[in-house]
Amino acid sequence: MIRVAVVGAAGYIGGELLRLLIGHPEVDVVAAVSSRFPGKRVDGVHPNLRSATDLLFCTADDVEDCDAVFLATPHRAAMTQVEHWIGRAKQVIDLTGDFRLDDTEVFERYYGTEHAAPHLLGDFVPGIPELYRESLRTADLVSVPGCMAVAGVLALYPLVARDLVEPEAQFDARTGSSGSGATAGEANLHAERSGAMRVFAPTGHRHEAEISRHLGIRAAMTATGVEAVRGVQTICHARLRPGVDKSAVRRAYREQYRDEPFVRVVAHQRGTFRYPEPKILLGSNFCDVGFAVDEEAGRLVTIAALDNLMKGGAGNAVQFLNIRMGWPENLGLSFPGLHPV
Amino acid sequence: MIRVAVVGAAGYIGGELLRLLIGHPEVDVVAAVSSRFPGKRVDGVHPNLRSATDLLFCTADDVEDCDAVFLATPHRAAMTQVEHWIGRAKQVIDLTGDFRLDDTEVFERYYGTEHAAPHLLGDFVPGIPELYRESLRTADLVSVPGCMAVAGVLALYPLVARDLVEPEAQFDARTGSSGSGATAGEANLHAERSGAMRVFAPTGHRHEAEISRHLGIRAAMTATGVEAVRGVQTICHARLRPGVDKSAVRRAYREQYRDEPFVRVVAHQRGTFRYPEPKILLGSNFCDVGFAVDEEAGRLVTIAALDNLMKGGAGNAVQFLNIRMGWPENLGLSFPGLHPV
Amino acid sequence: MIRVAVVGAAGYIGGELLRLLIGHPEVDVVAAVSSRFPGKRVDGVHPNLRSATDLLFCTADDVEDCDAVFLATPHRAAMTQVEHWIGRAKQVIDLTGDFRLDDTEVFERYYGTEHAAPHLLGDFVPGIPELYRESLRTADLVSVPGCMAVAGVLALYPLVARDLVEPEAQFDARTGSSGSGATAGEANLHAERSGAMRVFAPTGHRHEAEISRHLGIRAAMTATGVEAVRGVQTICHARLRPGVDKSAVRRAYREQYRDEPFVRVVAHQRGTFRYPEPKILLGSNFCDVGFAVDEEAGRLVTIAALDNLMKGGAGNAVQFLNIRMGWPENLGLSFPGLHPV
Amino acid sequence: MIRVAVVGAAGYIGGELLRLLIGHPEVDVVAAVSSRFPGKRVDGVHPNLRSATDLLFCTADDVEDCDAVFLATPHRAAMTQVEHWIGRAKQVIDLTGDFRLDDTEVFERYYGTEHAAPHLLGDFVPGIPELYRESLRTADLVSVPGCMAVAGVLALYPLVARDLVEPEAQFDARTGSSGSGATAGEANLHAERSGAMRVFAPTGHRHEAEISRHLGIRAAMTATGVEAVRGVQTICHARLRPGVDKSAVRRAYREQYRDEPFVRVVAHQRGTFRYPEPKILLGSNFCDVGFAVDEEAGRLVTIAALDNLMKGGAGNAVQFLNIRMGWPENLGLSFPGLHPV
Repeated sequence: MIRVAVVGAAGYIGGELLRLLIGHPEVDVVAAVSSRFPGKRVDGVHPNLRSATDLLFCTADDVEDCDAVFLATPHRAAMTQVEHWIGRAKQVIDLTGDFRLDDTEVFERYYGTEHAAPHLLGDFVPGIPELYRESLRTADLVSVPGCMAVAGVLALYPLVARDLVEPEAQFDARTGSSGSGATAGEANLHAERSGAMRVFAPTGHRHEAEISRHLGIRAAMTATGVEAVRGVQTICHARLRPGVDKSAVRRAYREQYRDEPFVRVVAHQRGTFRYPEPKILLGSNFCDVGFAVDEEAGRLVTIAALDNLMKGGAGNAVQFLNIRMGWPENLGLSFPGLHPV
Repeated sequence: MIRVAVVGAAGYIGGELLRLLIGHPEVDVVAAVSSRFPGKRVDGVHPNLRSATDLLFCTADDVEDCDAVFLATPHRAAMTQVEHWIGRAKQVIDLTGDFRLDDTEVFERYYGTEHAAPHLLGDFVPGIPELYRESLRTADLVSVPGCMAVAGVLALYPLVARDLVEPEAQFDARTGSSGSGATAGEANLHAERSGAMRVFAPTGHRHEAEISRHLGIRAAMTATGVEAVRGVQTICHARLRPGVDKSAVRRAYREQYRDEPFVRVVAHQRGTFRYPEPKILLGSNFCDVGFAVDEEAGRLVTIAALDNLMKGGAGNAVQFLNIRMGWPENLGLSFPGLHPV
Repeated sequence: MIRVAVVGAAGYIGGELLRLLIGHPEVDVVAAVSSRFPGKRVDGVHPNLRSATDLLFCTADDVEDCDAVFLATPHRAAMTQVEHWIGRAKQVIDLTGDFRLDDTEVFERYYGTEHAAPHLLGDFVPGIPELYRESLRTADLVSVPGCMAVAGVLALYPLVARDLVEPEAQFDARTGSSGSGATAGEANLHAERSGAMRVFAPTGHRHEAEISRHLGIRAAMTATGVEAVRGVQTICHARLRPGVDKSAVRRAYREQYRDEPFVRVVAHQRGTFRYPEPKILLGSNFCDVGFAVDEEAGRLVTIAALDNLMKGGAGNAVQFLNIRMGWPENLGLSFPGLHPV
Repeated sequence: MIRVAVVGAAGYIGGELLRLLIGHPEVDVVAAVSSRFPGKRVDGVHPNLRSATDLLFCTADDVEDCDAVFLATPHRAAMTQVEHWIGRAKQVIDLTGDFRLDDTEVFERYYGTEHAAPHLLGDFVPGIPELYRESLRTADLVSVPGCMAVAGVLALYPLVARDLVEPEAQFDARTGSSGSGATAGEANLHAERSGAMRVFAPTGHRHEAEISRHLGIRAAMTATGVEAVRGVQTICHARLRPGVDKSAVRRAYREQYRDEPFVRVVAHQRGTFRYPEPKILLGSNFCDVGFAVDEEAGRLVTIAALDNLMKGGAGNAVQFLNIRMGWPENLGLSFPGLHPV
């Protein structure tokens, strides 16, 4: 059993980390840090954990040395606290945006703020097992990518890796409301947010920079809030290299993801769920990936779906932990999702 | 054209009043009072009014004399401001809870606060046209009842008025999230409120006292928030007086509501919408009322549905204005609702 | 008063036509044709019309000559019946897909069927007032375009008309479930469709051909069903011509739509509803249009939202009728939409 | 490993059984019977099971002897097939309504049909571990109760068992759309069902008879469909015996459910989720139970919530299997539910 702490444990990503880590057979959760609710019961904030834990929230100062610490604080808090946590834990897994980009200038353009620890930017390994698994096996500093970025990257990576598409693409990302966090403002009131199709970032969303970084292409992303609590779907519009046909595309996806425990290729001829959809992924760590080719026009549409709190956050972080510790990659992550739901 | 002002115009009831009054052919909206947004455009807060109005929010001090003022402030603000508005307008229509009860002691029990203007409690005529139309024709002070109370009262009134039921009943009220207002807290975040079946008042809800008052029976009400933005449905479980059969019940409803412009009796043998349901009433001023009798057990279930911001608030207030002014009762209130929606 | 008939009156577009036409001060609805429910009450199928009409559904044979007939049948039924209706009515307004394209070959490619009346294809004027108002003033055969196509066309037209964008664009259309009609199959069961983000047409959707036709560009459209009953939003990703800046784009939209009664330009710096969103348009005939420019990348995103049964169907058809008859263009179409909802 | 078969495996309860049983460490699913889809892949119908199984649906004739068979067919199919399955399996667990009542006359009144195997009615043990655990340890024929009935029974049982309430109560049950099954008709189209508050059974619902049976009181139940896919909540309005106070009520619940693995008492002073709510129970086997007492009026309201496909169906069935086999009662049932969702 390793000892882990979750910082920012009262938030939605924090809660999901607690759910996974409390249920993980090799992990002992020794601290749930919340600056808002120290001393309160964890299951008061996360009622799904009733009868699963008697843990109380604590402050950062209460945390003793541990094996791994997960940072699920608001953006900008991680980069100021990170040195503190590096001194306390062997692995630091950051789930905020603070260490997702490795270029200070790009960071400042997209985040509109100076970076508080630029010297560490290059030390964090991106927490995308499908692209960086070998580095992750030995990584002690990991930055889990943004939910819409993970989906966008996995949607197009097999084609980029094989140079089958032009190096420019449009990404249309849709997200549920939980991505805004547990302390969101009036735009997230139920009466305002319910039934939304809200283009909150037509251009310049931060996850766009991550897609560009990991795929090495020019990515333009539009982000829309749709009616859902959990769930992200990213559509990618791209242009095929001349001569690339449907079967080359299919082969690329099959090859790339054949052995991935948490990526499924979903591109069927028929059926209600013939393309990836987050609805059936709630609580699961899968990212489903599909595609459709218009050979005549030389274009393709690729589609990825995931649960933003799981493969787009906490689940991905636990998958890294499993990799890092040499445990089975799906340990504690085997919930398959529900249907219908 | 009469000149009207809306106080608390940035709230949800306030916005609905503005929508109705701006579209009303005999009304000129001269002021939209908001303490939060003075000087801002009304359609910035109520985007459905874009191109319908160029009105700006103003402060209470900006309002000159007018014919009618509608108070849609938070509860407790109305009772402290009411004398001010009585000095400014011929009619004062209060849509808060402050003047819904005529008994100070009952008020204090249900509202947990002292009343700031107890001497006026008896002067407000309840804004339920179906029960108090004659008084409303000449009323200058009107208190529009609570949304779940209107539904509960209209659901059972025909039977109570004819002494067909025992003087005690259970009311099960379900409500959408807009009833909590535009400044609600974390429990109303979309991620928390979405898909809710939330018993927020198992006993002791304020609207219970109104039902008891208007029906003259012992009412016990349970209130549950369900997934909807607009819409209230109140179910009533009651016991028939001995010997009362189904046809007597049906006759009572038909007779009572035959000439009511905004109550429809909905109790069919078949069809998806055979009982009242708020979904098809969004934006309309109807209260649909239905019933089902278990003759053998001597029990009945009655059901009422309405849009809480319309017949449960702003629409009811405008219906009163039409009555008071001698205009057609449905003037400016003719939107029938949508299907599907 | 003119006499009108609605064919396919038990469907969702048919029901919306009935709601609008029954409420229209210059129109008498003389027939509601339904092959499924002849002899049944209209308000049994469309419960929002209770107390608004006592009309019964009838068969096509029951319809005598009338001034205008609206065809809201399933696709493919209109083209086989159209000659019959041309013999019965001065104006025939088709709301199906049958006469939306003017090129037989394109029709057959997108619809996968032969056209039953190809000689009439060129006679139907497209029912988009914003592009074809002058022709519509005298048109007797009109084809109302697809809901996602209307949104896509209005989203980009001001820029295409001024040659400010490259002649190629990607359209990302999202739609509610009512677009699938009242007789849809298992994929539209609530348990399956609720919370969907369902890419049902990654490429090759029929509305794509309409966008290409009306804009004269190469359009690639992806269609996704999202959680909503009513509502369409179409996002367009396009590339600016060299040298075109933000202010030229803004000017184009303002100029183009300044005098349009049912198009609003919505592109604000802040506010929850700063870009177009269908939620606040339910039941209204507005199409809101917005845009965001990335000057550095030379790209832009445009956004249009509407209610698919209104501006995307029945409302657009009534707007044509008003134009054709010389009535105020918003007669019977003045409902502004709700907020919140 | 025991060998089990699921009959009616393409339905929603059937799919949930497959999800649980495929993930159960002591169970081997040897057959998934579907008369609609023989030969098709199970994960085509239940897409959440992709990568979890390669099973194909088969016909009843394909099933060889096995240890346990779960009947999740439509109502009325089970009673005609049951003798066949008794010949094939040691345990037969029926999840339909066919064996939920032990009195032929009551069955025929509530189900409106003759019973096809009345001689077996008394042989089925009700699958409510909290009431019948000892009998279930050796039972070979089990009837899993209706979802709203389980909630209603568990909501009031502690008080009935201690004679703290009058023997008569009203139950107000609310349910998601998945309870109508995977082949439901037009009333369950998304456009019709979305946002519903649909009183589909004001009186006489079948689950009412089960509540009466298990509690031994006169139960009157009203059933309403609300906006949700999964989830049942049953509210109970009852009258306390004279002299019973709040602390006696609390003590009854605590005592009764202290050692129950799947019943949690949820009745807090504050917090968004202070009473039971199905939202946080999706996919979990918990039934949360709460209460609120109005001592002055001598009344109380009790509340139970569960996932209708889990504790209201498949989960309850697997809990029985664990009891019958002597395995830990929560084996394969440990998913805690999600928050937010």
